[in-house]
Amino acid sequence: MFKVIHQDKKTRARLGEIITPHGKIVTPAFMPVATAGAVKTLSSEELMEMNYKLILANAFHLYLKPGVEIIKKSGGLHRFMNWSRPILTDSGGYQVFSLENTKVTEEGADFHSSLDGSSHFFSPEISIKIQEILGADIIMVFDECLGYPAEYKEAKKSMERTVRWAIRCRKVHKNSRQLLFGIIQGSIYKELRRRAIEELEKINFPGYGIGSLSVGEPEEMMLEVVDSLVPLMPENKPRYLMGVGKPAQILELIKRGIDLFDSSFPTQIARNGSCLTHKGKIIIRDSIFKNDTTPIDEDCSCFVCRNYTRAYLRHLFNAGELLALRLASYHNLFFLNHLMKETRKAIRENRFSSFYSLTKNTLKG
Amino acid sequence: MFKVIHQDKKTRARLGEIITPHGKIVTPAFMPVATAGAVKTLSSEELMEMNYKLILANAFHLYLKPGVEIIKKSGGLHRFMNWSRPILTDSGGYQVFSLENTKVTEEGADFHSSLDGSSHFFSPEISIKIQEILGADIIMVFDECLGYPAEYKEAKKSMERTVRWAIRCRKVHKNSRQLLFGIIQGSIYKELRRRAIEELEKINFPGYGIGSLSVGEPEEMMLEVVDSLVPLMPENKPRYLMGVGKPAQILELIKRGIDLFDSSFPTQIARNGSCLTHKGKIIIRDSIFKNDTTPIDEDCSCFVCRNYTRAYLRHLFNAGELLALRLASYHNLFFLNHLMKETRKAIRENRFSSFYSLTKNTLKG
Repeated sequence: MFKVIHQDKKTRARLGEIITPHGKIVTPAFMPVATAGAVKTLSSEELMEMNYKLILANAFHLYLKPGVEIIKKSGGLHRFMNWSRPILTDSGGYQVFSLENTKVTEEGADFHSSLDGSSHFFSPEISIKIQEILGADIIMVFDECLGYPAEYKEAKKSMERTVRWAIRCRKVHKNSRQLLFGIIQGSIYKELRRRAIEELEKINFPGYGIGSLSVGEPEEMMLEVVDSLVPLMPENKPRYLMGVGKPAQILELIKRGIDLFDSSFPTQIARNGSCLTHKGKIIIRDSIFKNDTTPIDEDCSCFVCRNYTRAYLRHLFNAGELLALRLASYHNLFFLNHLMKETRKAIRENRFSSFYSLTKNTLKG
Repeated sequence: MFKVIHQDKKTRARLGEIITPHGKIVTPAFMPVATAGAVKTLSSEELMEMNYKLILANAFHLYLKPGVEIIKKSGGLHRFMNWSRPILTDSGGYQVFSLENTKVTEEGADFHSSLDGSSHFFSPEISIKIQEILGADIIMVFDECLGYPAEYKEAKKSMERTVRWAIRCRKVHKNSRQLLFGIIQGSIYKELRRRAIEELEKINFPGYGIGSLSVGEPEEMMLEVVDSLVPLMPENKPRYLMGVGKPAQILELIKRGIDLFDSSFPTQIARNGSCLTHKGKIIIRDSIFKNDTTPIDEDCSCFVCRNYTRAYLRHLFNAGELLALRLASYHNLFFLNHLMKETRKAIRENRFSSFYSLTKNTLKG
């Protein structure tokens, strides 16, 4: 299902391939987030046009709305949202544990819907069942997530429970066309992370997510955890850092051997009027752009940069036009996908280190 | 600039062509409304894809935001919004007279911006100046608009003033590449409408808008006014009924000899979750559609109908996804443009009357 195509010589960066029933994903890859079955403001056609090969959807949100029965009757999530390429679904762990008043037992988690207050119960078995109905190509085990900071004792308990739940997930998962990934918990404690991957490897998942990072800890701390964890992870399985992130962070993590990323960051900042460029982030609402007839990014070839100016974008934001949110979201996702493509090219051509050095600072802008 | 290509034998419906610097418009035609330089939720690329040949923008809104200087520096409205086909701009008359506290003198109208309360003054000369800077292909005279009901005396005064203002507009309009249309006022009073067109024809405009209709009067009354007015209008000039409308109304008016239409109706109802179909309007949020895996309209070939189901659209609306507004807007405008195309075809093939009879009732649904 996964193979490393090329290993960078100076860093842990690597080029890989994941084969799924809906096609091949070349890694490192970034997944746009289609929480409720749509990447905010964008159509599936546009994501295909941008050449995204993998998107993420949330089992939790889709379970609450529209409900899995509707998606089942629609022929699965791919057909429901008209996306014929690979999908990864998150198990709902992160969302359930982000809610207040969630009650956790060994059996699973009781929670209240933030939409209507209704009571629900998620367990490893239920999460897998939901994800099987949704029919994503890659699905995730149901895990217990922790925020930052977390006490050692608490982190240990949660990591151990996540391992036990992973065993239960594996046991009930019947759809052999779906890849079920384990999730490594353990907060910022390297020892716990080490134990997590050892235990999960005994179950032998075909890939691993790294959970509870990028949840408020300093970036250096996140990178340290990754630095100590990646060498313990198998070479021949994809590594997915869940919930990251910013272009500069992604580059740092690729250097450290991470293969997959997801984040709502590019679309979220777009809706607030921020655009990614090769010279750093710009706030397009800013009055300095009012007569700027250049594109968002001179070096970007997306349709927004080819056809529209900063002055027009700024006007659309000021006039409250929804088109503003669309154009900025499109550009940011195009920009990030292009960055991933350039990064993969650099790895393939044995020049990742120099690419990293050149790109890193401009991205932080 | 305009010629009638084919006159229907049984009705006043006719096929025409308007030649502009940005291309040919085949009439009857409907203009999507790009109030602030964007058709709400849609890109210029999408309108081109739908094959719209003419859009409407508002001089009033663009004057207030972003301001004409910015559009001038951007190379005109066509370049600003990346639309290379014809544009018609409204003069601002309708908007200025829709505001509370507008003070009218023979010179022009003092008004306060609803955006920030700032004071502004519009006159025939200023409106033409603004529209020349925007650079639309068809521009409108600055007129005094009335709502419904309006007293005869008031309607007479306003019609006469609009004629005097039309003379002033004509006098200052220098850009020979732009067609300047006169506007026929006179509320529901046929006698006033008759006098208006007689006076305007002395100035000899290349086309005419009909103002202050579809402003709250019963539909029958609107049709009666049109029935009495159209025979008095020159055959060889385009007739534009401003602010209409609904598909069934458009069909009625084409039958009565109207060539051009504009309305925010299709996009406005789309954002509220209503979709036009060949079997009438449907409210896509309705729970009856929750498991409906058919397209919005089985007979529509737009990308929304080809790729997405009613169940998905309903879900997007319920989940508050902006994509819902886009897809519904796209479909409604595509649907209406297709209706216009079918109508033109029917006129060309001498079967407008039967087309009208067949289509009329289904549209009202």
